[in-house]
Amino acid sequence: MFQPRILVHLGASDVPEQFREESLVWVRKAVERGAEVARTGAPAEDIVAATVCVLEDCPVSDAGFGAVFNAQGSHQMDAGIMTGDKRYGAILSLHGVQNPINVARKMVDDPRYSILSGAGAMKFVEELGIPILPDEKFETAYNRYIQDQFSGHGDPLDLFVQPPPDHGTVGCVARDIHGHIAAGTSTGGTPFAPTGRVGDSPFPGCGVYANDEEGCCSCTGYGEAILVELLGAKTAERLPKMNPMQAAKEAINAFAKSPRHVGGVICIKKETGEYGLYHNTEHMPFAMLMDDGSIVSGLSVSELKQ
Amino acid sequence: MFQPRILVHLGASDVPEQFREESLVWVRKAVERGAEVARTGAPAEDIVAATVCVLEDCPVSDAGFGAVFNAQGSHQMDAGIMTGDKRYGAILSLHGVQNPINVARKMVDDPRYSILSGAGAMKFVEELGIPILPDEKFETAYNRYIQDQFSGHGDPLDLFVQPPPDHGTVGCVARDIHGHIAAGTSTGGTPFAPTGRVGDSPFPGCGVYANDEEGCCSCTGYGEAILVELLGAKTAERLPKMNPMQAAKEAINAFAKSPRHVGGVICIKKETGEYGLYHNTEHMPFAMLMDDGSIVSGLSVSELKQ
Repeated sequence: MFQPRILVHLGASDVPEQFREESLVWVRKAVERGAEVARTGAPAEDIVAATVCVLEDCPVSDAGFGAVFNAQGSHQMDAGIMTGDKRYGAILSLHGVQNPINVARKMVDDPRYSILSGAGAMKFVEELGIPILPDEKFETAYNRYIQDQFSGHGDPLDLFVQPPPDHGTVGCVARDIHGHIAAGTSTGGTPFAPTGRVGDSPFPGCGVYANDEEGCCSCTGYGEAILVELLGAKTAERLPKMNPMQAAKEAINAFAKSPRHVGGVICIKKETGEYGLYHNTEHMPFAMLMDDGSIVSGLSVSELKQ
Repeated sequence: MFQPRILVHLGASDVPEQFREESLVWVRKAVERGAEVARTGAPAEDIVAATVCVLEDCPVSDAGFGAVFNAQGSHQMDAGIMTGDKRYGAILSLHGVQNPINVARKMVDDPRYSILSGAGAMKFVEELGIPILPDEKFETAYNRYIQDQFSGHGDPLDLFVQPPPDHGTVGCVARDIHGHIAAGTSTGGTPFAPTGRVGDSPFPGCGVYANDEEGCCSCTGYGEAILVELLGAKTAERLPKMNPMQAAKEAINAFAKSPRHVGGVICIKKETGEYGLYHNTEHMPFAMLMDDGSIVSGLSVSELKQ
């Protein structure tokens, strides 16, 4: 039996002072929940889903209830899960769903297809009997703050050619007691994005990635850059060669080719179960389960003694 | 000035006898059109778009006019383009658009976002002034053949757990006269897929990939497997180390872990401009532009003298 391992992030960003304490409370709560599920012997993808659900319910993340307003004043959410044996499911452009990661989790078990988007994704949600909640349920103090912070500065779409605004995509990497690994990422996207815009979060090798030869990763940051730089795959391919803390740091440094390339990654090295995390933003709230059952958390990787 | 290079595929499959000659006519026509555009000095992404447009207009491909029927008896199309300097655009779940690759081409130039799906993608099409054609325009002899071949065998969704049916995703890799490279892929997906199903075709590292350190690739085949195996990226990473014909062959052989893992890839090695192609299906109709302006084409890589 393996020690379960769980590491989560709450997005690579500059977390406003008034939301920092709450961020730490929720990342710890998420890992606690994941640890409970892990102790039952559940597979890594179930640990990931249960953990990410807590982060989606967290009002200071940009996922689930905290999903930011898009250009139409609504929400659109994407989520993906991938396992070390390369089962994978993702769901794009959901709205009104409390826990998109649970929908992605269902896709992992479906051998017929891996990605569903838009109207088809909503139809699948309906078939699962998951209720669709009104937009108002997704208005949190944090996403109103983001809205206030970035609206009224000319064409909001210009935000996309500026350094991207603060946000809080969430993610989890986990190893179950059987030694299997999985990763999951869930996001509400970027403020003021047009309907249908999808970033890196749900895609293999980009925002989410896992394979048993290397390890598993969840990424966060400037989605359009993570997509083309394959940040998840580029982190994973470093894992067999080095300490995962170093792998995460090297992957982010290689990614950071321009001031717009901001982001962060968390990972688990399959061979050893060791954690890696790094970000080139001020913060990336994180929490991790230690072998003695304790939880280590912080707002930034710099708080970790290495 | 560099010699322009253009290589196209019409999907990795077993092309029925009655559609083979027509397939060859169209892949040659596509390369001819691409060569005309290349001679004007146009950038690689324009060569790719113009070439793929011809393949989308081809009635024996599963892209554009030949897009297969989905489970709802309609069509849904995905397309993506990526350049060696990592500009990228993709469009998911379009319907009624004659040339989805032209919409992806517009996304490449848009610094605000890279992927648009579903209703948002259709809104973007409308903004571009591109007409939406009725479903009937997409009924070709070839996709009626596919429909007849695979319908009426129990639950059509079971097709997804069988070896996937014949199909003809299309793709192009190109180098312009300035030495820049790009790749593009366009597809009508898989027969009987539910609304919103998206495969590998439009995603970086999966169905489409390019970077100036390695080269550019377009993939085709069993989408759900190409997604998790990152076939585009795994082909590209072999390019600096070996002849691209060998890179394509090794990438497909590594991909072919189960009988369901069928597919093909075309690529150009950035350093030398050499072509690579391989597939583990009976056919993958292809055509390539030679330095003397002639075009070499075939139904299978085995027809090439190596």
